[in-house]
Amino acid sequence: MTNAHLEAASPEREVEQYLHRHIPLTVAMGVRVRIAMPDRVELTAPLAPNINHHDTVFGGSASALATLSAWTLVHMGLQHAKVNAAIVIQRNVMNYEEPIHGDFSAVCTLIDDSAWQRFVKILERRGRGRIRMNARLMFEGRQVASFEGDFVALKRPDARI
Amino acid sequence: MTNAHLEAASPEREVEQYLHRHIPLTVAMGVRVRIAMPDRVELTAPLAPNINHHDTVFGGSASALATLSAWTLVHMGLQHAKVNAAIVIQRNVMNYEEPIHGDFSAVCTLIDDSAWQRFVKILERRGRGRIRMNARLMFEGRQVASFEGDFVALKRPDARI
Repeated sequence: MTNAHLEAASPEREVEQYLHRHIPLTVAMGVRVRIAMPDRVELTAPLAPNINHHDTVFGGSASALATLSAWTLVHMGLQHAKVNAAIVIQRNVMNYEEPIHGDFSAVCTLIDDSAWQRFVKILERRGRGRIRMNARLMFEGRQVASFEGDFVALKRPDARI
Repeated sequence: MTNAHLEAASPEREVEQYLHRHIPLTVAMGVRVRIAMPDRVELTAPLAPNINHHDTVFGGSASALATLSAWTLVHMGLQHAKVNAAIVIQRNVMNYEEPIHGDFSAVCTLIDDSAWQRFVKILERRGRGRIRMNARLMFEGRQVASFEGDFVALKRPDARI
């Protein structure tokens, strides 16, 4: 097995390839996956393709990266729990706290494990579950925006994750 | 004067060129400006560059188009009022009501004229104003998502709009 094979097998590269293949805007945005674990996801994006007329990150890009980080955490968590489900976003709130003057990242972590366990249980029992996720946008080591998103998962026993 | 010149002079083409030049993601998203008036903005985007793994519009694209429509309405309205200001988004809420299976549009209209007049007055007096904008995403003639965004405008007397 070559190094390329080993790298391709990491969860980060798998998720990144999945995003790039299925959501072409992630390619345009230059989204990279730094961490993809069931309890922590970190995505990064460069300023250049996401710049606006103030030479800072366009709000739409900021919101999109946060959304992707939260979606990815739900995806990773359900994969870890061996539940095959379609995940869709229902609602989100973005707070833009500071202009972002350079490459930025979105960090989503599992902050309420009992809420997650309830979500998985209800999803398995009823075929549908809802979970609220939080993410932060980071620039130069500090939080510059916050995201809260409600996601709905619909179990699909006969399809691939 | 050629037709191309005439077309370039329309507010729609001007705004479209502005967005494409300053926010490269709008090119990647295929954003077009259908209407750009001080009280109504309509932007469109095709499905293909904004697709996700469900073959519907990626939430990040939906939110970005809504954000752009609201920003553009504030921009057009302030231009109409001859106030030169930098406009930044502070907060937004998106409700994703239905999956979007094709080309879509974002429509932002001025629904509260007295709030707008107050915003312009305060902006002119204090150099800073805040306004809440609402936009709807449309697909096949019906609303499929709603957006609420708070924008802050900062007057800049010595810079171009």
